[in-house]
Amino acid sequence: MKVNKDLLEKVDFEKGNGLVPVVVQDIDTKVVLMLAYANKEALMKTIETGFAHYYSRSRRKIWKKGETSGNVQRIVKILLDCDEDTLLYLVKQKGVACHTGEYSCFFRTVAEFEDE
Amino acid sequence: MKVNKDLLEKVDFEKGNGLVPVVVQDIDTKVVLMLAYANKEALMKTIETGFAHYYSRSRRKIWKKGETSGNVQRIVKILLDCDEDTLLYLVKQKGVACHTGEYSCFFRTVAEFEDE
Repeated sequence: MKVNKDLLEKVDFEKGNGLVPVVVQDIDTKVVLMLAYANKEALMKTIETGFAHYYSRSRRKIWKKGETSGNVQRIVKILLDCDEDTLLYLVKQKGVACHTGEYSCFFRTVAEFEDE
Repeated sequence: MKVNKDLLEKVDFEKGNGLVPVVVQDIDTKVVLMLAYANKEALMKTIETGFAHYYSRSRRKIWKKGETSGNVQRIVKILLDCDEDTLLYLVKQKGVACHTGEYSCFFRTVAEFEDE
């Protein structure tokens, strides 16, 4: 496991009151699975263990994805965006990502355009 | 253009004080390009025009992606997540998505794990 410590220090948790949004993408299928939030502790646990951890805003605590369901996310790569306030986790998803039983949390279409 | 009006009504802007995060993915390359925010007006403009509009938290106004750079995002599909508080725009990206000149805003690696 390789960590870019300088870049890790730059993650801006202040802008979001201690949290950054985390986009989660399946590295094999390239499907966007979910969006969650991480505080610094969740990010550090993710890096230390190699499994995705997030911060639950409703339960106000760190959680390991798949802790009860078994649908864990093994981290392959963590990227930081240009503004340094959003993370992208590229993961190996075990089972499904969504608590509804769907593979991705984005399974409903609001609008669709014809390809021109 | 097909809109699911019932689902559109369900988008939860309240949780994020009028804003929802929008994950933006290139529908052709499947690369996650950026994360931005939309208020209801930005989402409606996106649906009406077929081009991605966002709300700038720093400038406190709606902006059309690529308005000055020309790097517009033509919308193919808009998806809503299970919690109804995050959107996913699947787009045809013209040019690059990042203001730095990079194709994606996620171009720096914080941590990388060996595949086992």
